[in-house]
Amino acid sequence: MSASRPAVHPVEAPPFTDGPNNLQRVRMKDTQGMPGTPGGLALRFFQFAFAAVSLSVMASTPDFQSVTAFWYRWTLEDMFWHLFSSYLVAAVGLQSLWSLSLAVVDIYALLVRRCLRNRQAVCLFTIGDGVTSTLTFAAACACAGITVLIGNDIGSCGQNPCARFEISTAMAFMSWFAVSPSFLLNFWSLASR
Amino acid sequence: MSASRPAVHPVEAPPFTDGPNNLQRVRMKDTQGMPGTPGGLALRFFQFAFAAVSLSVMASTPDFQSVTAFWYRWTLEDMFWHLFSSYLVAAVGLQSLWSLSLAVVDIYALLVRRCLRNRQAVCLFTIGDGVTSTLTFAAACACAGITVLIGNDIGSCGQNPCARFEISTAMAFMSWFAVSPSFLLNFWSLASR
Repeated sequence: MSASRPAVHPVEAPPFTDGPNNLQRVRMKDTQGMPGTPGGLALRFFQFAFAAVSLSVMASTPDFQSVTAFWYRWTLEDMFWHLFSSYLVAAVGLQSLWSLSLAVVDIYALLVRRCLRNRQAVCLFTIGDGVTSTLTFAAACACAGITVLIGNDIGSCGQNPCARFEISTAMAFMSWFAVSPSFLLNFWSLASR
Repeated sequence: MSASRPAVHPVEAPPFTDGPNNLQRVRMKDTQGMPGTPGGLALRFFQFAFAAVSLSVMASTPDFQSVTAFWYRWTLEDMFWHLFSSYLVAAVGLQSLWSLSLAVVDIYALLVRRCLRNRQAVCLFTIGDGVTSTLTFAAACACAGITVLIGNDIGSCGQNPCARFEISTAMAFMSWFAVSPSFLLNFWSLASR
């Protein structure tokens, strides 16, 4: 009787996912740009590259260093210019760190062919992308406003290296353009399960 | 034989939606903040109110009118200040028009108890929310940068009415805070079907 038990109760291995979920997972795996896909890795690379260029251009500006050293000679305009360039540096620094770490996660997932689709991970990626992209966009917009305002004033543009400031702002915008698809795709994949 | 055909081919009315979709639709109907719900109407009202206050504060500034009239006396700073306040006025004007029209649609949907959940409508709402919220946020950030830069300079703050400029910027930020949930909920409802 104990031998016949398997035939009486034919227990199938329970499916890991139910039907519609499984179907979605197959469909989602093909969408490039999500975490764990080559498209997603490319997006992360561009985010990191633009943010890193923006960071290095701004931080290597001679003014950024000399103004910090001779802080006792600051005028008010110098101070606010420094405040905003520091905020931009902080925002794109955070962005480049976040994109770099997610690029490493993507490379790992591609190498071991592991699916990065559990809910907690996607939720974390979405929140991180949302926060960093908002900070980067806010910094880029504020710096663009300041660049337009003081950059065209010939007198203050002699003091502040406007070209570097503009390049850094443009790179921050490019980085934001690369983060937005990541955020939207992650949010989409979070909602569609 | 022609009489027996209906019995041979018992044609059922095809279901309008399949099972999981229908279940999702019932779940989604309860989520406040989506179009056609009282929460969504409240969000639209706050978006419209903050954007309208921002618009009216900025447009009723005496400087905004007098500077426009005496444009031949403009300095460069006046010109850029005017450029940015005009951009803020345009962005929050678009935002208030969009929110007002969607509030009207929400009121109509609530009155006739109609469900605003067809795909085209949600897609349109999502794109509109995304575009207007990005424009409003960009304008608010740029104006915040300018306000901090020139607002604390006592000399130029005598010319430009800083308090009104700050109130208008803050209201634009509040409007953006109210648009973001609408955008995210619409995007979520677009993805989860």
